Amino acid sequence: MRDAANILFGRNTVTEALRSGATIERIFLLDGNHDGVLGAIFKEAKKQGIRVDFVTKSRLDEMTDRAAHQGVCAYTAAFSYAEVDDILKRAEEKGEDPFIIFLDDIVDPHNLGAIIRSANVAGAHGVIIPKNNAAGLTETAAKAAEGALSYTPVARVTNLGRTIDELKERGLWFACADMGGEPCFTQNLTGPIGLVIGNEGKGVSPLVKKKCDFVTSIPVRGEIESLNASVAAGILMYEVVRQRNVDKA
Amino acid sequence: MRDAANILFGRNTVTEALRSGATIERIFLLDGNHDGVLGAIFKEAKKQGIRVDFVTKSRLDEMTDRAAHQGVCAYTAAFSYAEVDDILKRAEEKGEDPFIIFLDDIVDPHNLGAIIRSANVAGAHGVIIPKNNAAGLTETAAKAAEGALSYTPVARVTNLGRTIDELKERGLWFACADMGGEPCFTQNLTGPIGLVIGNEGKGVSPLVKKKCDFVTSIPVRGEIESLNASVAAGILMYEVVRQRNVDKA
Repeated sequence: MRDAANILFGRNTVTEALRSGATIERIFLLDGNHDGVLGAIFKEAKKQGIRVDFVTKSRLDEMTDRAAHQGVCAYTAAFSYAEVDDILKRAEEKGEDPFIIFLDDIVDPHNLGAIIRSANVAGAHGVIIPKNNAAGLTETAAKAAEGALSYTPVARVTNLGRTIDELKERGLWFACADMGGEPCFTQNLTGPIGLVIGNEGKGVSPLVKKKCDFVTSIPVRGEIESLNASVAAGILMYEVVRQRNVDKA
Repeated sequence: MRDAANILFGRNTVTEALRSGATIERIFLLDGNHDGVLGAIFKEAKKQGIRVDFVTKSRLDEMTDRAAHQGVCAYTAAFSYAEVDDILKRAEEKGEDPFIIFLDDIVDPHNLGAIIRSANVAGAHGVIIPKNNAAGLTETAAKAAEGALSYTPVARVTNLGRTIDELKERGLWFACADMGGEPCFTQNLTGPIGLVIGNEGKGVSPLVKKKCDFVTSIPVRGEIESLNASVAAGILMYEVVRQRNVDKA
């Protein structure tokens, strides 16, 4: 069940939320009604890459518990997003090389939550996700993260490729998790690193992959050729942890 | 949706299935009706550790698409179970030291499926699960396994502890995944190995843990102290893979 605290409704409220850059996950508009304000909300939502669904009045009534929704209702994130700088600051405070997980369009909120949980346990400094076409910090993701969202910052960026470029300038190396690369176990994954995990079905998109410094692969020993995205992310994160520790030993 | 091929109904059919040792996951009995045959089915199901639910007639009608269910309906496994010997044979045929995953009461079928998928990708020879109180090879598990069930044998045993004893006599070492052990990365996980993964909430049960040769731990670097069960299983499986490969290099 969605927490009432994460539902906004009413034309002014949703318009203001959009203007303030609040973390809106999804917007529901009354079907067929595209007058001035609702039309403007639709346009702005699309511009910000927010998913918009057109629904019936009874659906809106139900979602808002029959409040005065005025034809619009929005789901906000269950947790607030951090900035990329917050993640870098966390590494700096710990005196560690940055270790950041990039998710290129993970769509299943259970996977997103499990990956944030693993990122915390493995001591990664944060997770970066794209604004469009990806699962956000919904209740489902928060639940699967098992409390990790209270500690591990998650930043949401408009363009993953551009963020990778910016972080490369600040000294990070980028490893793209995909088939066909060298086995992760024999690669050097130490130093300031961004680990890029792709979409559950399609993997890392070509544009993002091209930005990465190298491809890292989990060796396949069976007939099935790929792991669940959150399992793959966990294995690669812990290979980074292992190599960082060997370095110290 | 449950495949019709995985539903049995009718008193004789279910009684025979129980007698033959078929892989029944769950039985539904008409509420309040405990006459001779249904009572015997209940008793035998309990003896075999099969979950029994009492439901209304309309629920049974719906489940069986209004067939002549006679007050009883059973869900069979979506895939058939293998024997422990099939798993050992698979290792022998490949000329490899046995590498077997033991699941001590994994209850979420998504986790079960994801672990079977990882076991296949990592080249483990099979998965062993307990008959009682654990997720079985349902459609949900099969779906999460992404085809791995066609290759990786899954055996179901009455008593995990006894099976561990038997396999120890055949030369396997048992590593119990739990907190408080040595970090997996500095342990020797080569040779014939059984990797024991515990229940999502409670971990490995004390009785099973006592049977294991040692505890293996994934080092914690963050505030959250445990990983999702299928992620933890994947990390440990791949530490076995990594060590086996280093050996060969």
